[in-house]
Amino acid sequence: MRIALIGLGSVGKGVGHVLKNDKRFTITAAADSKSGVVNDKGLNIEELLAKKKTTGVCGSHEWNAMKIASEADYDVLVEVTPTNAITGEPALSVIKAALSRGKHVVTSNKGPISVAYKELQKLADENHAELRFEGTVAGAVPIINGIKHGLGGNKIKSVSGVLNGTCNYILTRMEEEGLTYSQALAEARDLGYAEKDPTYDVNGTDSAIKLVILANTVLGMNAKLSDVKMVGIDGLTADALLMAETTGQSIRLIASIDVEKNELEVSPRLISELDSLVVEGTLNAVTVDTEYAGEITFIGRGAGSVETASAILSDLLSVYEKYAE
Amino acid sequence: MRIALIGLGSVGKGVGHVLKNDKRFTITAAADSKSGVVNDKGLNIEELLAKKKTTGVCGSHEWNAMKIASEADYDVLVEVTPTNAITGEPALSVIKAALSRGKHVVTSNKGPISVAYKELQKLADENHAELRFEGTVAGAVPIINGIKHGLGGNKIKSVSGVLNGTCNYILTRMEEEGLTYSQALAEARDLGYAEKDPTYDVNGTDSAIKLVILANTVLGMNAKLSDVKMVGIDGLTADALLMAETTGQSIRLIASIDVEKNELEVSPRLISELDSLVVEGTLNAVTVDTEYAGEITFIGRGAGSVETASAILSDLLSVYEKYAE
Repeated sequence: MRIALIGLGSVGKGVGHVLKNDKRFTITAAADSKSGVVNDKGLNIEELLAKKKTTGVCGSHEWNAMKIASEADYDVLVEVTPTNAITGEPALSVIKAALSRGKHVVTSNKGPISVAYKELQKLADENHAELRFEGTVAGAVPIINGIKHGLGGNKIKSVSGVLNGTCNYILTRMEEEGLTYSQALAEARDLGYAEKDPTYDVNGTDSAIKLVILANTVLGMNAKLSDVKMVGIDGLTADALLMAETTGQSIRLIASIDVEKNELEVSPRLISELDSLVVEGTLNAVTVDTEYAGEITFIGRGAGSVETASAILSDLLSVYEKYAE
Repeated sequence: MRIALIGLGSVGKGVGHVLKNDKRFTITAAADSKSGVVNDKGLNIEELLAKKKTTGVCGSHEWNAMKIASEADYDVLVEVTPTNAITGEPALSVIKAALSRGKHVVTSNKGPISVAYKELQKLADENHAELRFEGTVAGAVPIINGIKHGLGGNKIKSVSGVLNGTCNYILTRMEEEGLTYSQALAEARDLGYAEKDPTYDVNGTDSAIKLVILANTVLGMNAKLSDVKMVGIDGLTADALLMAETTGQSIRLIASIDVEKNELEVSPRLISELDSLVVEGTLNAVTVDTEYAGEITFIGRGAGSVETASAILSDLLSVYEKYAE
């Protein structure tokens, strides 16, 4: 299958890595934010990244993401550019262009899926194309396919999870070492776990976006970001965490959906240290409470270049198995 | 889709329960160990169970499991009779009869899958039938489909898990309350978590069978029960568990597969209390260590009538989506 790779940042690099020795897939088009390149014989992502590093662009100005999506020859568009949580752009238009042509789309970009899932899925269905997005929530953890394929037939009562590794790292360090919030945040930045501007992570926005995606894509809800009741971790004191510990509890930033009450919430909550959601460091964890299966918890790495690429690879293989064999 | 339900014990009852209001499926044939019944308009499992309770049989001696599998009119055979780990019989022959006719098979029976997976899968492929068995390992936890569909493309380095709820309950109680092994086992029996003869659970056989299934069905290995190095929990003292606790560790019966070394082992092991595999009570947990996704852990209820039926339902829906739509 021929892949058009849109986005050559951290995740794009990971995708290049995991597909390098996979004979089932050939990357025949690629774009960064300023340029694009097309080659039916296959592109070497490492060479493109090296070129980008020295020249600032991976290809020529003749091509760009939109032109590739609309005109190039490929089977699956892999969209891994940064998230815009308000408009979903420019990824949203690029994905629409691909789906309109009946091209399959695999993405880890939370923007378009959280803003316009129903519209995109409709477009995909109308054009007999696949739309897959396992990497948008909890990185390598197969939570979307896990619910869809592993828990099929179950009525889902609620979902709650630790969906932001940055916050979880900060809380773990405050709890373990008695660090203040600022100290733990500084440490997370030093280690590359927090961005320069960590606002969207620590105020709960990133978790809320993922919650909207879960609500709309696997729970059949119709939620938007503004529906999520949101409290971040930036107001938490080291004392609060230490106090929790003395009673056998932990504080975690929990993102939850109560399906029956139609309530979405992100907030720091006290939970028992024995709860499966109390994971350490940058891990993510999601517990799904179901009618027949009871509670099922999924734990794993919620971010990272290769980890997110792993989710993209599993989506690509599902498309491959359905269409290429 | 028309279902032939073979087995009317605890899991069969659960299957009847979860399918009761599901319009996509109709149970048109059913068998217990002594009799069978066929009705194209649909059978009421509760009525059959009531009849079985008073008369000892659910149907007539004209029909039985094998005759239903070979001659009745149905789309999917659901096989949920008790496990025979040595021969896989009588389930193995019944499943073969169904697959040979191109009928799909969904089972939670560990016997035939651990004894003859490759042969059965070949038979299924040759006859264009589906063979599904999510319920054989870790009950409601979607570990088989989770690895196949959620972690597709990843090289799996190892799998380790708590696969026997009876043992985990006993160890949890010894740890929490300082009970002796015999006391904890007696309690597990009282609560229905342990069978009258718990040998296969506590000596590690049940975990080892599940390990063989994982090895052969999702890891491409070719293992048999006698390949598993096995130590049970029956020799553990309360002191050992208490001692572990003083060092921040727990003892759990861990079933593990090292794929590269081709080693399968079930034994009580010391693990950090922070490890995701340290689950409480009758829970099951499985950690899969992968090339790209790192470690992914699945936690949930590993047994129970409705929980196992949940796994069967998700398998049935996969077959339904592939063939009935």
